[in-house]
Amino acid sequence: MDWITKDNKLEKEFVFKDFIDAFAFLTKVAIAAEKQNHHPEIFNVYNKVKISLQTHDAGNVVTEKDYTLAKTIDAFI
Amino acid sequence: MDWITKDNKLEKEFVFKDFIDAFAFLTKVAIAAEKQNHHPEIFNVYNKVKISLQTHDAGNVVTEKDYTLAKTIDAFI
Amino acid sequence: MDWITKDNKLEKEFVFKDFIDAFAFLTKVAIAAEKQNHHPEIFNVYNKVKISLQTHDAGNVVTEKDYTLAKTIDAFI
Amino acid sequence: MDWITKDNKLEKEFVFKDFIDAFAFLTKVAIAAEKQNHHPEIFNVYNKVKISLQTHDAGNVVTEKDYTLAKTIDAFI
Repeated sequence: MDWITKDNKLEKEFVFKDFIDAFAFLTKVAIAAEKQNHHPEIFNVYNKVKISLQTHDAGNVVTEKDYTLAKTIDAFI
Repeated sequence: MDWITKDNKLEKEFVFKDFIDAFAFLTKVAIAAEKQNHHPEIFNVYNKVKISLQTHDAGNVVTEKDYTLAKTIDAFI
Repeated sequence: MDWITKDNKLEKEFVFKDFIDAFAFLTKVAIAAEKQNHHPEIFNVYNKVKISLQTHDAGNVVTEKDYTLAKTIDAFI
Repeated sequence: MDWITKDNKLEKEFVFKDFIDAFAFLTKVAIAAEKQNHHPEIFNVYNKVKISLQTHDAGNVVTEKDYTLAKTIDAFI
């Protein structure tokens, strides 16, 4: 996985063909996030998406929950 | 295009890996439909989607609007 | 709840202001369905949505899983 | 409208009941954005959404396109 750790967050940037592809990806991320009861920070503009993962309940650090969601998200690409 | 004409509608069935993939596809269809001001009949259960296209304003027949949306939808696969 | 039982399915029809409102509702239904691992039959055309619920694993009858998802869906309105 | 102008962007923060409500709102924003061919910067974490509007083609300033999309987005609340 090419996620980077920055400011105690696991981060990854994604680039899609266009906005529709980017938002369809975000819809997958949204469904997975709610299912895992773990919600990322999402940033989007046009065909670009940035996902940041951090476990707030654990004191704003990266935990197993973040790696699990990261792995799920990678499988959507 | 492997759309079939049935009951004056243009129809196609799609099968995806799972529900998340099917719903991400429907999100693309939804955005395209609203953009073209032309809304399909959508049927979904789990990983299966059926899209039916018909132009109500033209007397419930298949028109150029339906072929245009069908082509857009095919490009999402 | 004004769901009706028909052909061993729990069914309800919803009418929204327009397609955008209808699809935003379907997005909520999709997230809830995946979270509960129980997926409805969804029918949509423009501002109309029909949801049908049935438990296939239990022999295509209405079970507690269907009533739970129906209650969740009703809370989205 | 309680949008603020900051760094040549029109910005507004929205707070929803939960993530599902926030993402259903983002789905409406996504459909409207694609329809208007004008895409916002979107930030989301759980029930919070921040939308930033700016017209890149006009030299990264706020234009009529941004006010139009802002008005559309406000109507979704």
